[in-house]
Formats: sequence, structure tokens, C-alpha cells
Amino acid sequence: MSKTIAVESLEKIEQSDSLGVVETRYFTFAKASDELTLESGERLGPLTLAYETYGKLNAQKTNAVLILHALSGDAHAAGYHEGDEKPGWWDEMIGHGKAFDTDTYFVICSNVLGGCKGSTGSSSINPVTNKPYGLDFPAITIKDMVNAQRHLIDHLGIEKLLCVVGGSMGGMQALQWAASYPERVRSVIPIATTLKHSPQQIAFNEVGRQAIMADPDWKGGNYYGGTFPAKGLAVARMIGHITYMSDISMSEKFGRRFNNGKIHSRFGAEFEVEGYLHYHGDNFVRRFDANSYLYITKALDYFDLSNGKTLYEVFQEIKAKFLIIAFKSDWLYPTYQSKEILKICKLVGIEATYCEINSTYGHDAFLLEIEEETHLVKHFLKKVFNGYAVVENYGI
Amino acid sequence: MSKTIAVESLEKIEQSDSLGVVETRYFTFAKASDELTLESGERLGPLTLAYETYGKLNAQKTNAVLILHALSGDAHAAGYHEGDEKPGWWDEMIGHGKAFDTDTYFVICSNVLGGCKGSTGSSSINPVTNKPYGLDFPAITIKDMVNAQRHLIDHLGIEKLLCVVGGSMGGMQALQWAASYPERVRSVIPIATTLKHSPQQIAFNEVGRQAIMADPDWKGGNYYGGTFPAKGLAVARMIGHITYMSDISMSEKFGRRFNNGKIHSRFGAEFEVEGYLHYHGDNFVRRFDANSYLYITKALDYFDLSNGKTLYEVFQEIKAKFLIIAFKSDWLYPTYQSKEILKICKLVGIEATYCEINSTYGHDAFLLEIEEETHLVKHFLKKVFNGYAVVENYGI
Repeated sequence: MSKTIAVESLEKIEQSDSLGVVETRYFTFAKASDELTLESGERLGPLTLAYETYGKLNAQKTNAVLILHALSGDAHAAGYHEGDEKPGWWDEMIGHGKAFDTDTYFVICSNVLGGCKGSTGSSSINPVTNKPYGLDFPAITIKDMVNAQRHLIDHLGIEKLLCVVGGSMGGMQALQWAASYPERVRSVIPIATTLKHSPQQIAFNEVGRQAIMADPDWKGGNYYGGTFPAKGLAVARMIGHITYMSDISMSEKFGRRFNNGKIHSRFGAEFEVEGYLHYHGDNFVRRFDANSYLYITKALDYFDLSNGKTLYEVFQEIKAKFLIIAFKSDWLYPTYQSKEILKICKLVGIEATYCEINSTYGHDAFLLEIEEETHLVKHFLKKVFNGYAVVENYGI
Repeated sequence: MSKTIAVESLEKIEQSDSLGVVETRYFTFAKASDELTLESGERLGPLTLAYETYGKLNAQKTNAVLILHALSGDAHAAGYHEGDEKPGWWDEMIGHGKAFDTDTYFVICSNVLGGCKGSTGSSSINPVTNKPYGLDFPAITIKDMVNAQRHLIDHLGIEKLLCVVGGSMGGMQALQWAASYPERVRSVIPIATTLKHSPQQIAFNEVGRQAIMADPDWKGGNYYGGTFPAKGLAVARMIGHITYMSDISMSEKFGRRFNNGKIHSRFGAEFEVEGYLHYHGDNFVRRFDANSYLYITKALDYFDLSNGKTLYEVFQEIKAKFLIIAFKSDWLYPTYQSKEILKICKLVGIEATYCEINSTYGHDAFLLEIEEETHLVKHFLKKVFNGYAVVENYGI
């Protein structure tokens, strides 16, 4: 009897904080008039976006929150896919009673244009050749990603988003949403992000790209159907992982301990941190397309919200309220870059709150500091939803 | 007439601060008794070290300064090789009137064991097989490098070094000298260095190694006589370059400007920083051996001065005076690591001066902040040479 009760309790707990089984859906805009004119000037279509939604759109359509993912993310932000053991990448933030409470909000997440998780990208079939695009896929930018998402939001019948939110590249998309569609965004939560990519950020991406393109299996991007450039992409991912963590979080996690006691195992893994990097590098190549990595990192590097104007001009048009979140030990997107967002908001009179979370996790913190983020986001979203002022500043 | 005078003045200036033409010499210890027992337990010999000397050893043999180079350095620290346009790597610090004034001091620099600039390393001929060692070369450590140098110092007839000095890996060797041979070192100048390699430092090296080993031309290290694994080594070097600079120095140097105005040149260089990385990556492969890069980065990663003891025990044996130099924007060897050297010196009562230079150059600063370093080193060396106390602390 007690066993049955325990199982029931467990089920209740699971039901209480998980969205349960969710499904990815696909939206294709195929009409010629729906072709996207990209920033490069090229046109792209037909175009599919993979997306998921959680919760229900209210009758007034005022409760929609658009979640935007980072470099290696996808549309599967929360809940479980049938048969999966792991939930979506931001499951702890989305669901009943969570930061993005699905009892109140209608949450949307789509895989970016250029991605490899169901949205049109370099690994998709080029309708002209009937083969994967490879490098015939046009260059894309953060603005292009946002323009594609706008079609999806139209399709869902949403005129105005309550909030656009994301960390890292997701934050760039959130900023771009507010700048590109000022009438359609009520609030923005840019997390661990920047107004433009710096030379150091570009440099790390470029070395990753060079590693991929140095792999002879890459074959100028025409590897589909052949051997995947796994070694190159693994090196790129390993570089990424170092930049996502911090000196201190690595020291806490690994120390300097040898995986085995011996000096020199012919350049195999001897330190825990090496084993960790190998594991994550090898894992990544099973779930990500090498060309997509090239295209999306380039989109990051092109990112400069001012885009030929002054930042003042760009932000003067923005009508949204801001909650800006940054992490003290994040050296890939250092806090000074988030403070620059706050500064320009204040200069033009935008309601903006800046929060610096005292985390040691580095850039990864935006996926890990759930408790702090939940507190901040919940409070902020509630106020925006109810139409209150939201200005408060923490940690500066 | 005025032209002649100008040329004469120029020559005088050159003579006044350059050592002129210098030559690399080679010291081989070939006797069986001279074989080196390495930390791994393996024995290595015969063994050659390439070295250069500047200035003259005095009659009492009390003016010898040993300069220790970093990862990609060599024995050619100062002056010009016949026909070369560029002087040695620390020329601005070594010569008449400079920090290491060759009018007063006898300066020695040798290429490390495991290197590829004249000292025995993985690209040397293995006397057993008559072919280059490749991965049959044994694993080496910083301690092994120092033990090999000790033979050279014996050969030069020097019982006690006035100073051992180096930046980065050179600083580790300097620390190891003081620990391994306490009776033979009067002073130590560790610059931009650490008592042990951290997981983050290991991680950056490991990704570089993975890039090299992912290059199919690497062929398990047996590429001699065939195609050089240039792409892999270039990627490794590019990663290194990012870590040698700082976010701010990169922003000052490159901004975000495009090399050309166009979006998407099929993943060629579009940003100045990309061009810079490509240039330095390509350059490096013409002057450095890929296997040496593997061996020397491993030596760095193994480095832990305490080596099974406590730091207190290690430093209690040390008799040298310390001048510790670090740079504020160095995030590869952050200042906290230099402060740890100061702390342990103070704990055991070693005379130690710590100087934190307010540079934006990042780790590269040890090669660039010549004026500050000259001031500090000159002052310190003079006091050690004359037997005065040297304790002063700046910047903390």
C-alpha cells in the first residue's frame, strides 16, 4: 500500500512541476510573398521554423512570451519528448509555478533560422538542387532570425508579445526584437548578452570555425551523405565549453587531479578537465550540424544592434521595459556589456532594471542560476503583465 | 655632409643599445653518466641544448643571469643573427644600459629540452632508430627542462646564478630552479606565471593539442619527411593568441571593422581580428614543430611546484630573493596566481617584492611592458648584486 502511495506522490510531484510530454511543431511559409529578404540582400524560401508552445494563449492574446535560444539550443525548451529522459533545455524555468508560469503565460520557443533542429538551415534540402544547401545556404544574421520568427508570431495570431527573453545569442535576438518591432514587444529580458560582438568574442568563434574547416571531412561544406567532420566540430565545441565556464568553476569542478596517476599516456586524457572536454566535444557532434555551427557563429559575430545608426537612435524607438541580467564570473559576455544596455536604456528614458548575479558558473550561469532568475523574472513579468512600473536596480 | 652625420649617429645609436650580431651555440652532454633521468622515470641521452650568451662572466663568476623562455621562445633572446632583420625575442631587455645590462651581467638563454630550436626534442634524431623521435620522445616536465639547463650551467663553470628570470613558462622554470637548486640561485624573477597550472589553463592547452592531433597530416606524430600538420597547429596557435591578449587590447587593436564591407565571403576573414589570427597561425607553422607543441604544453600542464609536498615545505628550502611581476589584464595567468607566490614567500620569510603592472596588453604584456619591467628589474638586480635587501611592494 505504501508503495502505491509513494508512486502516486511521485506522479503528483512530476505533474506539479513538469509540462509532461510535449511535441515540436513545424510552420512553413511557402508562398512567394513570404520569402524572406535577408540582410545580405539574398532571398530565402520556402522556410520552415520548428517550434513548441506551452500554456494557453488568453482571449486577449496578451500573455505570450517568446523564449529565444542560444547557439546550440533548439525549440524544445521545456517538457519531455516522448521517450526522452531529459527535459527541454530551460525546463526549470518553464511550467506550472515556475518563472514562466504556464498557468498564466503562453510560452513559445522556436529553433532559429539557420539551425539544424527542424528549422531551415544549411543541412536542409535546397529546393533548387534537391540536395542539402551546404555553403549555398545564404549568410544569416540575428535580424534575419528575428524576421523569420515574426512570421511565426503572425501565424500564431499574436499582435503583441508580453515578453521576449533569452540568454547569450537568445539575448541578442530579444534585443533585436525590441529594435526591429518596437510596437510588438512589451518587455525584454536580455540575459548574459551584448549590444554587439567584440573582437575577442569574434576571435573565439573564428578559431572554432577554422577547426571545422581544417577537418578534411568538412569538404567545403559538402559532407552530407559522407563522413561528418566530427573532429573539427568537437574541437570547436571544446573551445566553446572553456568560454562558457569560469576559471573558478573549473577549479571547483576539476581541481588538477589526474584521471590516472601516470605521467604521459601519449597525449590521452590525463586530467579530469580533459576528459570533460572530450566527452562534451564528442557528444556535441552527434546532435549538431557543422555547417550550422559556421552559420550561426557568423550571425553572432555580425551582431551589432546599432547597425549603422547610433545606439541612441535605435533605443529611442524602443517601447519595451527591460530586465537585464548578467553574471559576475561571465567573462565571455562580461557584465560591462550588460551595463552598456542599461546605460543606453537610461539615456533614452526606457524603464530598465539591471541585476548582476554573484555566480561562479561563468556564462553557463544563465542555464544554472535558476533560483535567482526565477525570483527576478517572476516579479518582473507579473508587473509588466499587470502594467506596473518595473524599475529597480540590484548589484551595481 | 649632414647625411653622413645622420648615418653615423644612427650607427652609434644601434651600437649603443644593440648587442649586434650574436650566434647560437650548442652544448651536448653525451657521456652515459650525463644521461638525464626524467621525472617519468625514462632516461634520455645524448642531449643537446642550444644556447646563447651575452656579456662577460666576471672573474668571481657572480654575475650570471639565466633567462628562461616561454612556450614558443628559443635561445635567441637578444642581438641579431647574421642577415636577420629582427632581433631576439627579449632584445629590448638585454644589452648595454638595458634591464639586463651586459656591461655588468653575463646573460645566458637556452632553448628548452623538448624544444625545436636546436635543443633535443621530438623532432631530433633518435639515435636508436636514426629517425626523428616523434612520439617515441619521452614525456618531459618543467623540472626536466631545469635539470637539463643545470648541465649547461655546470659546463659554463657557474656555481651560483645571480638571477633566474622568465615570463609565463619561463617563470615556471625560474621557480623550479629556485626549488630544485636552492644553493645555486641568488634571486628569482617570475613574471606572469603560476605555482601550478589550473584546469582552465590545462583546458586551453588540451584544445590546442586536440586540434593538432585531429589533423590527418599529424599521423600519430610521424609526419617528418611528409606533409606537416599545418592546419592543426595553426588552430592551436590561434587559440593561444586569444589567451595572450585581453578583451580590451583586442578592442583597441581591432574594433569590429570589416576587412571588407560585404556580409559573407564564404567564411573567409571578414573582421580584422580574423585576419590577425590567420596571419599569426600561418606564420607559426613555419617556425615551430607540432610535436614540440604537444610536449611543451603537456610540460606546462604537469607543472605544480609543490609536487607532492606542501608549498610551505618547498619554499622553506629556497634561499633566493624574489621579484614577482604580474599584469592586471592578464587573464591567462591572472594576478591572483602571482599573489600566491608572494604569499608563500612571506609565509616562510623569503624576501619578496610583488609588482602589479597596470597594463591592458594581457599576458603578452611581459614582452611589451619594457619600460616598467626595465625599471623594476634594474633596481632589483643591482640590489641583489650588491647584496642589499630588496623588499618593497607595489600595487597591492
